[in-house]
Amino acid sequence: MTSPSRVEQPLFRSEVLADNPLGDPATRPVPVYLPPGYDDDPARRYPVIVMLTGYGGTGPLLLNLRAWDESLPQQLDRLIGSGAMPPAIVVMPDCWTRYGGSQYLNSSALGRYEDYLVHEIVPFVDAQYRTLPDRAHRGVVGKSSGGYGALVQAMHHPEVFGAAACHSGDMYFEFCYMGDIAKLHANLASYGGWEKLRDDLLTIRPKDTRFYQTMGTLCYGMAYAPDPDAADGFALPIDPDTGALDEAVWERWLAHDPVRKLDSAECRAALDSLKLLFIDAGARDEFNLQVGARVFTRKLAASRIAHEYEEFPDGHFNIHYRYDVSLPKLSAALQP
Amino acid sequence: MTSPSRVEQPLFRSEVLADNPLGDPATRPVPVYLPPGYDDDPARRYPVIVMLTGYGGTGPLLLNLRAWDESLPQQLDRLIGSGAMPPAIVVMPDCWTRYGGSQYLNSSALGRYEDYLVHEIVPFVDAQYRTLPDRAHRGVVGKSSGGYGALVQAMHHPEVFGAAACHSGDMYFEFCYMGDIAKLHANLASYGGWEKLRDDLLTIRPKDTRFYQTMGTLCYGMAYAPDPDAADGFALPIDPDTGALDEAVWERWLAHDPVRKLDSAECRAALDSLKLLFIDAGARDEFNLQVGARVFTRKLAASRIAHEYEEFPDGHFNIHYRYDVSLPKLSAALQP
Amino acid sequence: MTSPSRVEQPLFRSEVLADNPLGDPATRPVPVYLPPGYDDDPARRYPVIVMLTGYGGTGPLLLNLRAWDESLPQQLDRLIGSGAMPPAIVVMPDCWTRYGGSQYLNSSALGRYEDYLVHEIVPFVDAQYRTLPDRAHRGVVGKSSGGYGALVQAMHHPEVFGAAACHSGDMYFEFCYMGDIAKLHANLASYGGWEKLRDDLLTIRPKDTRFYQTMGTLCYGMAYAPDPDAADGFALPIDPDTGALDEAVWERWLAHDPVRKLDSAECRAALDSLKLLFIDAGARDEFNLQVGARVFTRKLAASRIAHEYEEFPDGHFNIHYRYDVSLPKLSAALQP
Amino acid sequence: MTSPSRVEQPLFRSEVLADNPLGDPATRPVPVYLPPGYDDDPARRYPVIVMLTGYGGTGPLLLNLRAWDESLPQQLDRLIGSGAMPPAIVVMPDCWTRYGGSQYLNSSALGRYEDYLVHEIVPFVDAQYRTLPDRAHRGVVGKSSGGYGALVQAMHHPEVFGAAACHSGDMYFEFCYMGDIAKLHANLASYGGWEKLRDDLLTIRPKDTRFYQTMGTLCYGMAYAPDPDAADGFALPIDPDTGALDEAVWERWLAHDPVRKLDSAECRAALDSLKLLFIDAGARDEFNLQVGARVFTRKLAASRIAHEYEEFPDGHFNIHYRYDVSLPKLSAALQP
Repeated sequence: MTSPSRVEQPLFRSEVLADNPLGDPATRPVPVYLPPGYDDDPARRYPVIVMLTGYGGTGPLLLNLRAWDESLPQQLDRLIGSGAMPPAIVVMPDCWTRYGGSQYLNSSALGRYEDYLVHEIVPFVDAQYRTLPDRAHRGVVGKSSGGYGALVQAMHHPEVFGAAACHSGDMYFEFCYMGDIAKLHANLASYGGWEKLRDDLLTIRPKDTRFYQTMGTLCYGMAYAPDPDAADGFALPIDPDTGALDEAVWERWLAHDPVRKLDSAECRAALDSLKLLFIDAGARDEFNLQVGARVFTRKLAASRIAHEYEEFPDGHFNIHYRYDVSLPKLSAALQP
Repeated sequence: MTSPSRVEQPLFRSEVLADNPLGDPATRPVPVYLPPGYDDDPARRYPVIVMLTGYGGTGPLLLNLRAWDESLPQQLDRLIGSGAMPPAIVVMPDCWTRYGGSQYLNSSALGRYEDYLVHEIVPFVDAQYRTLPDRAHRGVVGKSSGGYGALVQAMHHPEVFGAAACHSGDMYFEFCYMGDIAKLHANLASYGGWEKLRDDLLTIRPKDTRFYQTMGTLCYGMAYAPDPDAADGFALPIDPDTGALDEAVWERWLAHDPVRKLDSAECRAALDSLKLLFIDAGARDEFNLQVGARVFTRKLAASRIAHEYEEFPDGHFNIHYRYDVSLPKLSAALQP
Repeated sequence: MTSPSRVEQPLFRSEVLADNPLGDPATRPVPVYLPPGYDDDPARRYPVIVMLTGYGGTGPLLLNLRAWDESLPQQLDRLIGSGAMPPAIVVMPDCWTRYGGSQYLNSSALGRYEDYLVHEIVPFVDAQYRTLPDRAHRGVVGKSSGGYGALVQAMHHPEVFGAAACHSGDMYFEFCYMGDIAKLHANLASYGGWEKLRDDLLTIRPKDTRFYQTMGTLCYGMAYAPDPDAADGFALPIDPDTGALDEAVWERWLAHDPVRKLDSAECRAALDSLKLLFIDAGARDEFNLQVGARVFTRKLAASRIAHEYEEFPDGHFNIHYRYDVSLPKLSAALQP
Repeated sequence: MTSPSRVEQPLFRSEVLADNPLGDPATRPVPVYLPPGYDDDPARRYPVIVMLTGYGGTGPLLLNLRAWDESLPQQLDRLIGSGAMPPAIVVMPDCWTRYGGSQYLNSSALGRYEDYLVHEIVPFVDAQYRTLPDRAHRGVVGKSSGGYGALVQAMHHPEVFGAAACHSGDMYFEFCYMGDIAKLHANLASYGGWEKLRDDLLTIRPKDTRFYQTMGTLCYGMAYAPDPDAADGFALPIDPDTGALDEAVWERWLAHDPVRKLDSAECRAALDSLKLLFIDAGARDEFNLQVGARVFTRKLAASRIAHEYEEFPDGHFNIHYRYDVSLPKLSAALQP
């Protein structure tokens, strides 16, 4: 009989997050899903899938139970148990910050989360578990800001990741971010200004759509337009007086847009080297990410970069069931 | 140095839930929070607080992490660690059903969850942990349907519970349920009728407000108006053709309304015997439960039953921070 | 060639509204639609249809133009011009009060709008225009509170009205009003209490859903439970301290419910005497009036009172296109 | 005693709208408000204020009565009657099209509404009424798309208008339009595509926020990017396959943005020649127009163009009470 899956959460003490600017913890648990059978054959090694969460989420939150639904470990058990997905180790790193995320980038405002992910978490997992410790057997997946992270990390680190899946990932920034940037000045005013929002962050109730709209936009800006010399380490995307777009800062955002990053030969080469590149988006995505996904995948096609694209009849939220599509493909592509 | 708190989840195999009508699991984990210091003095025994969740929730879900907020164990650690709350064992039983809850009652439609709670879980915890195993040191608390459960279980089982706290609990059914009953026929039609809703339950997306409004009303009806001879074991509160209120079934609901149950001398005596009876509600409760709480507490006062009542400036949702008020009071009342 | 239709708005000075308690105008324009051809044959007389508006509306507002849609006179022109509806005079009385309506009843809080309608407006129109001045050729129609008015006036005044049509009319008060009554206390609190709402009425912005929910409920109560001895001339349906239902006042409301009024032999006889009784409701009515319509029409059937009932696939708002169904039937039934 | 105000609606047969591409009427009523006293002194001439409505509205709709509020003629009566506003003739032209508006521009898709307004309506009113028929005594005002129209017509036609007021006018198109353009592809899909939306236009129910968002965006595009060679006479702002922004078309939109038009010396000179230039916006404008207004007025200030700017604590809708501020200023500036 196959041994059941289990989740371990070893504590990892980060060096790159030591002295991070927000004082967020440098020592964090690293949730690792070990598939059914892991304990049965001490010689067997497994592919690794790194799963990145969306804004406002974090790896350990993926372990949460859900009413009338599966947690991620339950979903993995079903996919692997049914034979749909070959077994893999799944890592759910915590790249959360006080401001709700990091876009998995290095930033003077937030911390060095790209380094944390690639140079610390990946080696730590390889050291602790029986992984197949090379890019051919390591993939990255996520949705929303996690989909963004999966795509960008695959672009930046072909030596680390050999396959990637991006669900409803942030891209084509004009369409996914501009609407919220346009409201940023009024939203900040509704919280009494940025400094007050910053200081009251933890006690603000409710953490509603307006809160996510405001804090998310700020946090993306901390990731895309860090500025070590500025107060709080980043450049606002708007003129603080009028609320108008700061074009220079906006250009810095756009440089991080996956659609624009395809203009880089290095990024294209990285994606072209993947064993699998899977992209999807909901046809009614509230952030219009299906438009971005179409623009992105057409640009991939124009560069003859192999990929799979699916559009599904839903919006942006509560779409973790889409992992039923990507995880089997990813794991199959990463098998030895 | 004090040993840290921990959560255990021993599996308990229920006899009263064996052969429950919905085929829900009879063996479930029972989350138990053991306070800081539990491991330090093997002779020390602790009061027990049983925490009941609202509709759509379940004990194990209380362990979930929260973005920008505390999980229940983190909240307990803070309250106990600061000295605000004397240490106690907190039990988070799983009284979930396929239909999202049980109101902690026995029902031919759902199962015998009152018996499960009182006759199985409470003794099991007393047997497994170093509790103070008597009513003087055992309390019950919850919010929404869990607040209802806390109040009603305290009324039914004074031999078991010596203190109770009810946050925003279901009561004064005309005001909290009638609005949703009035929409039940149209809501069922939107799902293709009850049988189809029942069969599609797990795959319906999204599980939105309409879903909770519909399924919640049905589930309350299963708890309040069970009928072993009816299809699915319960009587609908409406005429299935017109959608009009079924007055006879509605009377059966009302018999479970805490406001009406105060007309029973036994229930009054049970509440009067408590060391603490705490009730609160939000002044903007979306289900108008603050009106019910006022009616209920005025009726308590008229019967000279001691209680504390607070009204807080919020609505019905995301009010777990209110446990900061009730848990310290409860634990203090239950200390030896 | 047929002369075109026109709308006149003669001023009528009411005696029954003189000294009305709210100081609303006693002299008001009475919009009268004269059909195409009215000016062609000075001997021809026409049936009269009295159209009653919903809460928050008034006869003259029916003349308003609509973006991408017809005004009522334009709709009448089309129906009559196409031959679908035989020509009739249509009267749109103004039974508005400072509080948004009157339910077309006499009330110490609002004024004597039933008397105004039946004893003043109807004779005035008969005197001013070439009507067929008897019940056989006079009908009443309306939607929402106007549908309520049409039904109740037909019950009260068979000597005046020989046909009636009720679109989505207020009935089965448990389902259409209880939800808003349950919120009345909190809603009043949000406006700083009734006296403040009363005094700030005209300047409150926005007049949103909450405003209509609050002021509508109060206004219905002024119509259904007048009390000359009370402040402001009516009894609140709730306890002003707790917000709980005042059962005695609620019984007074229920006495005005068309469903209950069918228990009166006089009301039944009045409806039974009509040449046409048409009733409809939207299957998704936001106030659940389709349930009331089903209850009402089943009760009609049980009393063998002839009627027509239609349920249409829409909600409560923007359903003036339903007059396309009722007005041709009404006018045909009233032709000489 | 002063004679009361009155509204006339003379029919005007347009030549420039003859054969307009949508087959909209070329003969339309022209609502003209004649102030109190107009009939008392046959020698007295009055300034003229042209009022332009927002998208989805039209001049004659301004005459509509409002529940609990004033119609525009009632508002004018109050302002003039109290002495706050010197008497003026107010014209409410109908520049409506089948698609809900025209932005008061000439377009191959919609018709020549700028010519209609400036070369036909203005002279017609001067010919029919005792106006002061020169730019020194003629102003233009509006809100939303009507505010846009007021500003742009004042820029284009300094020989016609000597004062202008713009309430919450469309400007800084990145912030006011981009959000809706990003949703246009999905919105069109929800209506079955543009051709189907076009053909079903009149019967689509409800005309809700999505409808206005979709049809408004299309209509602005018809005004800003007409293309006589294209189907339906205009260029879509998006790629019809992917929904991505068509940058070339977008540049054509931007050329109509009041903020960009300030780069034209002619436009600046026109505004600089005004006796009054009044601009306002709500601090919570749902289309972020307060940001645009700040950008615009700062650019005015940089060019030393005199103007008044107010920001008021409200959103975009139901703000006709703001005419209480602009109309007295306008009329005073235009007095002889």
